[in-house]
Order: sequence, then C-alpha cells, then structure tokens
Amino acid sequence: MQTIFNPLPKKWPSLTKRPSQDTKTLNSIVNDVFRNVKERGDCALKKYTKEFDGVSIDNLKVSQAEIDLAFQKIPQNLKDAIALAKENIYKFHSAQQRPKIEVETTEGVFCWQEKRPIAKVGLYIPGGTAPLFSTVLMLAIPAKIAGCAEIILCTPPNAKGEIAPEILYTAMLCGVTKLYKVGGIQAIAAMTFGTETIPSVYKLFGPGNQFVTAAKQKALDYGLAIDMPAGPSELLVFADETAVPQFVAADLLSQAEHGADSQVVLISTSEEIIKQVQGEITAQVRGLSRRNIAEKALENAQFIKFSDKETSLHFINEYAPEHFIVVSKNTTYFIDNIQNAGSVFIGNFTPESAGDYASGTNHTLPTNGFAKQYSGVNLDSFLKAITFQKVTPPGLEKIGNAIELMAAAEGLDAHKNAVTLRLKAIRDGKTQL
Amino acid sequence: MQTIFNPLPKKWPSLTKRPSQDTKTLNSIVNDVFRNVKERGDCALKKYTKEFDGVSIDNLKVSQAEIDLAFQKIPQNLKDAIALAKENIYKFHSAQQRPKIEVETTEGVFCWQEKRPIAKVGLYIPGGTAPLFSTVLMLAIPAKIAGCAEIILCTPPNAKGEIAPEILYTAMLCGVTKLYKVGGIQAIAAMTFGTETIPSVYKLFGPGNQFVTAAKQKALDYGLAIDMPAGPSELLVFADETAVPQFVAADLLSQAEHGADSQVVLISTSEEIIKQVQGEITAQVRGLSRRNIAEKALENAQFIKFSDKETSLHFINEYAPEHFIVVSKNTTYFIDNIQNAGSVFIGNFTPESAGDYASGTNHTLPTNGFAKQYSGVNLDSFLKAITFQKVTPPGLEKIGNAIELMAAAEGLDAHKNAVTLRLKAIRDGKTQL
Repeated sequence: MQTIFNPLPKKWPSLTKRPSQDTKTLNSIVNDVFRNVKERGDCALKKYTKEFDGVSIDNLKVSQAEIDLAFQKIPQNLKDAIALAKENIYKFHSAQQRPKIEVETTEGVFCWQEKRPIAKVGLYIPGGTAPLFSTVLMLAIPAKIAGCAEIILCTPPNAKGEIAPEILYTAMLCGVTKLYKVGGIQAIAAMTFGTETIPSVYKLFGPGNQFVTAAKQKALDYGLAIDMPAGPSELLVFADETAVPQFVAADLLSQAEHGADSQVVLISTSEEIIKQVQGEITAQVRGLSRRNIAEKALENAQFIKFSDKETSLHFINEYAPEHFIVVSKNTTYFIDNIQNAGSVFIGNFTPESAGDYASGTNHTLPTNGFAKQYSGVNLDSFLKAITFQKVTPPGLEKIGNAIELMAAAEGLDAHKNAVTLRLKAIRDGKTQL
Repeated sequence: MQTIFNPLPKKWPSLTKRPSQDTKTLNSIVNDVFRNVKERGDCALKKYTKEFDGVSIDNLKVSQAEIDLAFQKIPQNLKDAIALAKENIYKFHSAQQRPKIEVETTEGVFCWQEKRPIAKVGLYIPGGTAPLFSTVLMLAIPAKIAGCAEIILCTPPNAKGEIAPEILYTAMLCGVTKLYKVGGIQAIAAMTFGTETIPSVYKLFGPGNQFVTAAKQKALDYGLAIDMPAGPSELLVFADETAVPQFVAADLLSQAEHGADSQVVLISTSEEIIKQVQGEITAQVRGLSRRNIAEKALENAQFIKFSDKETSLHFINEYAPEHFIVVSKNTTYFIDNIQNAGSVFIGNFTPESAGDYASGTNHTLPTNGFAKQYSGVNLDSFLKAITFQKVTPPGLEKIGNAIELMAAAEGLDAHKNAVTLRLKAIRDGKTQL
C-alpha cells in the first residue's frame, strides 16, 4: 500500500487511467454465440448452458413451483430487509417522475414533451459466488414505476439448474414479468434476437463479467440500447482529518472485496489519515471471508496525498469515480463543485453500503470514468421523451415566414413549400379545415 | 406510388423494416482514419481534408476574420428568422431544466439527485449541398443552457476551404466555443482523441452521412458517448378524411427531398385521401429544385390503408417513426396512445418544417425505429444526473440492520462490516465525529 505525494498534473492521466480490457479475443466468442442463438434459438441456449454453466436445462422459463419454493425459503428478517430497501428505492425513483413540460413558445405555437415507457426491457443479473438480488431491486423497481410492459429477467442457473431464491423472490416482489434461467453471452443474445421461449427487448440493463459486457456492446450493433458501458467497480474516498480511519478502511475494503480488479482510491490532505487508514485496512482485511480477493484489489489501490482541497477536487473530477465518499470539514465545497461522479456519499455515517442496498439511490452507476458523460440508472433510463406540437393558424402566421427563409437558405424547397401552401390557405380564409 | 390495403400483422415486420446499411466495408476505412488521426494528429486531418474534401487547409481553426465576414454576409431578414427560431428553441429547452430532487427516504436518510453538465461536447454539422445551420441551433442552444464548458463544432470546408457563413453566424450566436474546418470520419476521430489543434470531447452530437455515422459508432469503443445511432430521416403521416391532401403531400415531399434514402409513409383510413395525396404529390414534385432526390425517395414510399384507427396506431407504434404527423378527427386518441415516435405534429397547420426550424422542439430525433428506446436530443442529452446521500446516525440506526442482512445474504462481509462498525460507534455514543 504505497502512498503518492502531491503528484503533478502531468502524472494524473496515468493515475486516473483504469486497466484496459482486451475485448478482441472476447469478440470472436461473442460473435459465435450471437450467430448460433440467432439461428438456433432455445436449442443454442441449452447447449451453451450445458457448456458454460455445466447443467442441462429442460425448461428455460422459471416455473411457478420454483417461485413458490423461493418465497418459502427466504427468512422473514431478510424479507423485511428487502421490503425496507424496496420502499426507499421506490420513494426515491418515484420522486423522479415529472409532469409533461408545456410551453407556448410563440402565441399559438404549443410545444410539449412527454415521457413514455420503453415497452420491453431486459434485466441481466449475474450468478456466480453471490446472488446479487440487490441489483434486481435497483433495476426492476424503476422499470415498474416507468410502466415498462415487459420486464424480462435472465440469470444463470447454478450447477443444480437452480436460481438463488433471493433473486426469484425479489424479482416477483418488484414486478418482473418473465424470469429465465440463462446467463452469459447467450442470455444477452436471446434478449437481442428473441427465441422460441425468450422475447426480444428494446433495452438491456445490468452488470456482468467481461463476456456479458462485450455481449451488451454487441447488442448495440443490432439496434438495442444499453444502460451504460461497464467496467470494474470503483470507490474513491476523500478524507481529511475529520474522517474516522476505521470507517474509511471499512469502506475501501467493501469495494476491494467485489473483485480483484476493483478500483480503490483514497485521497487525503492529511498524511496521518492515510497512514491510519492503511493500518486499519491491514487489521480489518484479516477477518474477511473474501480476504484473497480484497488483498488482490488492494495491490493496485492508490493512496494519494494532496496539499489542498482544490487540487484534490480537480483530480477527483478528472478521475470521475463511480462511488465518491467525502468526509471533510469542507463538505459543501465538494458537493457544490463535484462535476463527475456516479453517486456521492457524505460524512462519517454514510457508507457506500447504504446506497448499495437500502438508502434509496440506485447502485447501477458509471465506472471507468464514464461519469463524465453518463448518468447512473435512474427512472429516465426506462423512459423516452417524445415531443409534441400543435401550431394554430395564427401561430403559423407568426413563425411561418422565419421557417420559409431558413428552409430557403438551406436549399430545401419542399420544406418551405409546406409552409407557403398553408399560409396561402390562411390568407384565403381556409382555416376551418 | 402503390397502395397497400389492410396488410396483415404478419406482413408488418417487412413493412416497418428500414433499409439496412452495410457497415462492414465502411469499418475498415473508419479504422484506418482513426488510427492515422490518433498517431499523426493535425497532419492526418489535413491529409484527409485534401483527399476527401479536395482542399488544402493551413489553419483548421476558424479565424475571427472569417467569423466577422460571416456576420456581414447574412442578410438581416435571415438574421431575424434565426433569432426567432433561437428564442423558441431556447424557451422550450430552458423549460426542461429541473430543480434537484430531494427525498428523505427514511427519517435521517437524505437522498437527492442533481444534474451537472457534460463538460466537453462535440457537435458535428454536415457540409454538402445544404448548409444545415438549423442543426447548429438544435445542438448548441441546449448545450449552452446545460452549461457545457466546451462546445466544439466541426464541419467540413467547401472546395474553397470555407465554411458556410450561416453555420459560422449561428454557431457564434448560440455559444459554440471553438469552430474547426474538418469533416467526415477525420472530424469524429479528432474529437475522439484530440489533436494539436482540436480538443477531445466526452460526447458527440449531430447528423452525418454513413461515414460519419460509422465513425460515431467507432467513437463508442473509445469511451465517448453519442447522442443516438443514426439512419436516414423519416416521416409517417396519419391522415383521415379531415386532412387537406395538398398539405399532406407537401409534408411528404419535404421528407422526400432530404435524400434518396428518406423514408416516407402515409397511413390512412380513407382510400380517397390516399388517392388525392398521391395526385398532389405528382403535381407538386415537378416544381422542386431537388425533384430527382424526392422522386427517388418516393419510389420506396409506402401508402397504407387500414380499416380503423386502432390498427393504424398499432402499426405506427411498431414502426416508431422519427416524425409523426397526425391529422384526424381522433387526435386525442393518437396523442394519448402513441408510444414510439421522435416528435409528433398535430393538425392541418403543423408541418414538419415547423419543428425542423422554428417552433422550439428539437429536430435531432431517433430514426430507424430507435424511438422505441431513445429520446430525441433534449436538454438532458447534455447533462448527467449525480445522486447524493447523507445518512445521519439516527438514519443509519433505522436502515443499518437491513443493509447488514442483505450484505450477508449476498456474501459480502466487508459491506456488512462498514455498517456494523458504525452502528457500534453509535451505540458507544461516538456520533459527534
């Protein structure tokens, strides 16, 4: 755990750079799977599930019996916890609803913008070591609030051909309409093309390993939209002398345990704090069940000392962290001036875990510096804006001439003519059409 | 101009399908240009400008003298027209601003969402036969309202090495910060990597030919965002017997004159209206300066008669038109139930030209069926949402246990631990940290 002191701006590009992933070799696998799923549908899905997940699946669709069993298996205290998280996430995302925006831009020219749901969305939930049912909450709740008619969920089965009951339970609770036991590239291909069993969708959401990420990028070529490009998860903490080192260490470790490629950064104006946090990390990491993963991630962790808050913030905006925890006597300065971050956690009692699970904010956030140009998942991710306009005859009389002049200047006669004919009708008194 | 009567739903996929573009051959050109621009910067830009635009450019940056000249060249009536359009576009996009959304999801748990501008955006404006200064209005005005610090504009020079004065004038009027004489793939590559002269940006906007479209898709691989995937422009009109055939024909022609690949569709419940519109098209097309282009586009135009409004709307939602004009005695039915469209134009006196230029709505809209999952350009296209949260000690006491349970169920010890340590501190009275 090395500390970097006051790095000069010319060094920043290397410090803010994330590890690049080689997608070339992935792409040929992705292309193969896409082609096969497109041509052979369910048959290809079953073949790949056998090959990659090591299990033969007869029925890709999750049955009602399996769902009923999941409801029985979840202990009541976990059900209560999920209910609390659901309520907060629901409250925060419902508040993002917005009435239509209506403007009479010129007298008699009425323009408005309304949002409509994306009719069919696909949620991908990874399987693997931990059943990420929290991501089901984060994706299905806003999809439901938005009013998406079809909310498809795909997740890989385990070696017994089963889905974690937490995922099934949460999915049903949050309004997922169809659940399928299929993962990896083949799940993304299925939702891209549709198969005999699985419907195609218009937009794909959710995290995944490098194969799933490459497959989502591939789905773009077939006209689907995706939530955002993905990369390993990240946490950047700014901590000055008001921070509790024990808490900061716990937060950095909660990022490090995600994966060996997790990005962990501590920025401080206090060398003492950095030292104390490093000491706490060493102490706390020993007790973790995912210690090996965390230690691997910590090998690449960055501890950077800057001399002032201004330089620190400048660096943080260049880094554009997915998660940004700020514990400082100058909190307001950071809140007001942060430009690039997925989600910001403020003060000693706001761990990243709060937003990961239950405070109400979304945890599907831009990594890899994409916070410079992408939002995290929010209600709007499941909606699209349509503009409407109605021009009255008096309105057209006011803006018609401007349109004619501009169309003529762009050399577009017919555009001009569409106005000229109408203005003539108005002059002829033919406005009661 | 053939009419299709009551096509059965099984025929709809072929009727709603747009011509597919072969991007494979384009991609090798795009890859070459990207590699060269990345390696050789301005030198490569000048080489390609010589090769593709047929002109040697010494200075890629537009000079103040060129801008001054443009201001002199634009006649006052066109300046007035542009000013009117600017005002309406400004009003409509300003109205899309939204205060921060704040929710106390649980007592003591404060969550909010704020929007921040994308710091650096790149606008691409095509050159070619018509100087599309209206697109400058549509992109630069919302970028300026959003507060984007750098608004870069690239557009190809003509054979004399000049930019149309309308583009220069409008760009300066709307707050573009830097203007460059470079077009095509090389312009997109320049804004992707940055060169000695041209800065890199975070997000790319604007229309273009198939080369520019392929280059924008390529820019995605390098971490940039783009406004939306593009395809040929489209207009679908629904007209019942209340429509004026002369106006409908003028609107369809204003779409057809855009390009030979423009998509032109008329849906009607009245065979008589279809016949009259077709007659009007034949009459009006003769007078157009872009007659050849329009006639070419009309070869693929679709005229479809449906027996009722419900089937018509169902088809329209499947088609997901970029522009949708509805002239009907059942206007409200269509407004309330349209799900997939870029922009909707209502009634006999609302030509598409109104939204193309001056009513206030944006004309950069999803084509190719992408209205199913994409919005047109709007204020949010230039912003990103950041979530913030502050959990107080009493707040953490309320949600902490739920977080611990969920983290444990996902097998993430350190996530749990970040809460456990804090709850212990609270129990020990250490909340004044």
